[in-house]
Amino acid sequence: MLFDRNSIVDAIKDMLSPDRFEHTLGVESEAIALAKAHNESAERASLAALLHDCGRSLSRSELRNEARKLKINDPILYMQPQLLHAQVGAHIARTRFNVSDTEILRAIESHTCGHANMSLLEQIIYLADAIEPARDWPDVQGIRALSKIDLAAALRWAMDESIRFVLEKGWMLHPNTVEARNALIKPEKTELYEIPIE
Amino acid sequence: MLFDRNSIVDAIKDMLSPDRFEHTLGVESEAIALAKAHNESAERASLAALLHDCGRSLSRSELRNEARKLKINDPILYMQPQLLHAQVGAHIARTRFNVSDTEILRAIESHTCGHANMSLLEQIIYLADAIEPARDWPDVQGIRALSKIDLAAALRWAMDESIRFVLEKGWMLHPNTVEARNALIKPEKTELYEIPIE
Repeated sequence: MLFDRNSIVDAIKDMLSPDRFEHTLGVESEAIALAKAHNESAERASLAALLHDCGRSLSRSELRNEARKLKINDPILYMQPQLLHAQVGAHIARTRFNVSDTEILRAIESHTCGHANMSLLEQIIYLADAIEPARDWPDVQGIRALSKIDLAAALRWAMDESIRFVLEKGWMLHPNTVEARNALIKPEKTELYEIPIE
Repeated sequence: MLFDRNSIVDAIKDMLSPDRFEHTLGVESEAIALAKAHNESAERASLAALLHDCGRSLSRSELRNEARKLKINDPILYMQPQLLHAQVGAHIARTRFNVSDTEILRAIESHTCGHANMSLLEQIIYLADAIEPARDWPDVQGIRALSKIDLAAALRWAMDESIRFVLEKGWMLHPNTVEARNALIKPEKTELYEIPIE
């Protein structure tokens, strides 16, 4: 075992609300299932999942203050500071939980907005967060089934849902999410060949 | 009158399919109504609307070829070349119809994707294209009514619909559309004051 799971679970249980703690365990079980389906390390998936929301109980002003200290400079994140729990959480994972695996840290950091070139572990954590057993939005069962067979297709579906949710809420749509989702669309080969421009 | 409307209408009628021609006249009537409601020149709105789809009858490969000549370098436009009718249309408006008013040319150019800092005329043409009388998507009547009172709110609604449509189709979502839509969301004042970061 790469890490002492019991001590991480105890610490996370202290840091989070009961609902958020249950959600975290759900993300862990889903992330492990996805890791096994797609040849990623189940232990890394477990650790990243357990810590993915470790910044979630900070207030909006605490998140903004922490983000300023981390020199994060992204106006949309400051306008919607709840998103910052990902970046701040990665910082907590590194400093308080002594996580040094940069892919795990990046998976925590990118689990809210995503980005265009996500690693397998990042994709697993983003998706596990969206489809863990307690989630019950429309289509979630379909995405859960698809996720074991075609990770990219399931991820795009989840990102489309996330974009629709943001539109519905009237929030800012983060460009990283749009780039992440566009990167999952495979253009026709014939089209691709025509792209390079002099 | 700034331009000979009859000769433009005749030329456009020759260039476009009957449906597209009817759509163009609808966009014109809607653009004139919006111009009157929001203190823009009705004549400029009319000319921009009449020419907004003048690049629409070119084939995908013709659009790509024209765009290459214009040194347009935007991969998403080449992957979905139907979008290029806006940029190519602005070029046709300038060269074949001798339009020199850069705001009219920009309104033609930005009517497919939009961008973050659209002028009043650009906003009018983008919106008129979405809500002209023949359009019958859900909510269009509400947006039509709102558009005469609050242009920005109607535009955001139309852009949200456009983003949902692109998601549904599985097309690439152009970052300019997302930036345009985000720019129409007014953050809380208290939030805004917190944005500047050292």
